[in-house]
Amino acid sequence: MLARGKIRIGVIGLDHPHGLMLAGRLWQAGATIAAFHATGGANVAAMRLLGPRAKSRPIDAIVDDPSIDLVVTAAIPSERGDIAVRALRNGKHVVADKPGVTTLADLEAIDGALADTDRRWWVMFGERFENRAVAEACARARMGDIGQVVSVLGLGPHRLGAGGRPAWFWDPQATGGILVDIGSHQADQFLMATGATDVDVLSAQVGNVACPLHPTMQDIGQMVLSGAGAIGTHRVDYLSPTGLKTWGDGRLMIVGTEGTLEVRTNVDVTGRKGKEHLIAVDGRGVRRLDAKTSSVDWAKRLVADIVEGSDTFVPQDHVRRVSELTLRAQAAATSWTAPDGEEDRP
Amino acid sequence: MLARGKIRIGVIGLDHPHGLMLAGRLWQAGATIAAFHATGGANVAAMRLLGPRAKSRPIDAIVDDPSIDLVVTAAIPSERGDIAVRALRNGKHVVADKPGVTTLADLEAIDGALADTDRRWWVMFGERFENRAVAEACARARMGDIGQVVSVLGLGPHRLGAGGRPAWFWDPQATGGILVDIGSHQADQFLMATGATDVDVLSAQVGNVACPLHPTMQDIGQMVLSGAGAIGTHRVDYLSPTGLKTWGDGRLMIVGTEGTLEVRTNVDVTGRKGKEHLIAVDGRGVRRLDAKTSSVDWAKRLVADIVEGSDTFVPQDHVRRVSELTLRAQAAATSWTAPDGEEDRP
Repeated sequence: MLARGKIRIGVIGLDHPHGLMLAGRLWQAGATIAAFHATGGANVAAMRLLGPRAKSRPIDAIVDDPSIDLVVTAAIPSERGDIAVRALRNGKHVVADKPGVTTLADLEAIDGALADTDRRWWVMFGERFENRAVAEACARARMGDIGQVVSVLGLGPHRLGAGGRPAWFWDPQATGGILVDIGSHQADQFLMATGATDVDVLSAQVGNVACPLHPTMQDIGQMVLSGAGAIGTHRVDYLSPTGLKTWGDGRLMIVGTEGTLEVRTNVDVTGRKGKEHLIAVDGRGVRRLDAKTSSVDWAKRLVADIVEGSDTFVPQDHVRRVSELTLRAQAAATSWTAPDGEEDRP
Repeated sequence: MLARGKIRIGVIGLDHPHGLMLAGRLWQAGATIAAFHATGGANVAAMRLLGPRAKSRPIDAIVDDPSIDLVVTAAIPSERGDIAVRALRNGKHVVADKPGVTTLADLEAIDGALADTDRRWWVMFGERFENRAVAEACARARMGDIGQVVSVLGLGPHRLGAGGRPAWFWDPQATGGILVDIGSHQADQFLMATGATDVDVLSAQVGNVACPLHPTMQDIGQMVLSGAGAIGTHRVDYLSPTGLKTWGDGRLMIVGTEGTLEVRTNVDVTGRKGKEHLIAVDGRGVRRLDAKTSSVDWAKRLVADIVEGSDTFVPQDHVRRVSELTLRAQAAATSWTAPDGEEDRP
């Protein structure tokens, strides 16, 4: 058994800045960043974290390195499935930034690799794991605090930030599409809040409403999900107004037969300062709950799961369900009619 | 032409307390309450408004009375269509509480009566006409303040208040079903915010999740609408937590390509006091707008429309579109799976 603090990680792909967050959190939790692979501008970002002497190594060198326990990937989303399969088949655990995969074929290849090995494949759904109000709302809903959960509403607006986006950001083949990519947070939260294991996609739409220069890119999407007696309506977009001081005014509203839980994820517009706002309304009244009394500890739990063989971070079947559900919603999505326009938003 | 202040109204049906609100607002606007018809307990409520000597008159006597200009109805919803047709065909204008009709046949009968007369049929969508923040948000969205409107989200939770509800409340044949009844506010707001005239119902669900003693009653419903390049997701329910100090924490969130408008209709939970909260976020920043600088003036406008022949209250085609749309959504609705339960909520 590996001693805690001796977990060695190889980072493959820092194309999304979440990769630095993932590696940084694991490093804080005692892991050693043993190697990384990154290309282009992402290298520079990696260097800042890993020190000026750190050098990108080939992917093969990392997956072949027997000293590495865990591969962390925030590569271009469409490459994450293949990276995961190679790592799993070479005896490594994998944690991917969301989305873990962008096609059903990739998901099935990961299924195969998992079946053939005793390694695990995790996906990081940061809107819950990095936000204690979201995590607490889902946990309370699941534990029956508001009766039977009958409705989940999720809003995931994101800043477009067109100037800082890499080329692959605009290509739905690379991102998997908006429901697979940022919609995976929504599916994660719906499944967590309801406990549903069998989910129907009742309706899904994706569209490009404000980026006419990149007509195939999807800047808005929504899906209506049904499972465990609850209906989930989830919208994601890249339409955060430029005057908002955070990347997105995310919301989660869970309705139960005996109360409601509302999360204002990153900001309470014109309200209280800070993020992670959680409001409960039930038979007793209306109140704010302080979700900040717990700590953001997913990386510690992930390290423990590897060291001790426990299952405290995120269950394998949940990861698979989220991935499969978003792929299904994306495939079912019809078109959001676009308004006329000539210039992309800033 | 009738002089303002001389409008005489006949109130037919006070089954819903909104009838008193309608009559009261019109009285404040200068109308004379000339007659009323009400049955059962609703009579008592009417007496309080109209004075101890007021007596209920038969419907025929009211629709035959040539001195009456306007029939106001908040009868059992399924009776409103017939009342409207009789009033229109007897030369009266009609204003109904929402929903104006509960079946397509009723709507077509009203179409016929309108085509054969020069009278008008209005429906009162109180969540907008009585709430200046909702009205202002819809108006600003329509005027382009937030760019092109691409998404409208409406939440209309209501207190169940089971103890005070009449028998017809529990019968979807009488109410038209939850999407026709309280969903009409949602359709009104979607059409106003977007300007859509041709709307598809993408998905609709209704169910009974918390009233097992009244299994055919619908205590939750939602619909996804598409029109004018925007998608609307609208949930209505009778699940307001009993600890909430208002009948419902209604919300309206309009997303445009350049900003968002958010209304907290009746309450800003754990936030500021009062109702009619309007928050705008756009390229300039985040701010509260004071919607209370205008007045709730729909009754004055309605009186003026009758006296002067103007069209300032609510256009006929809008009223018809809302009615037709909610009937269509209700007819298309699939079942919300109910959780197990044995007792109705309070």
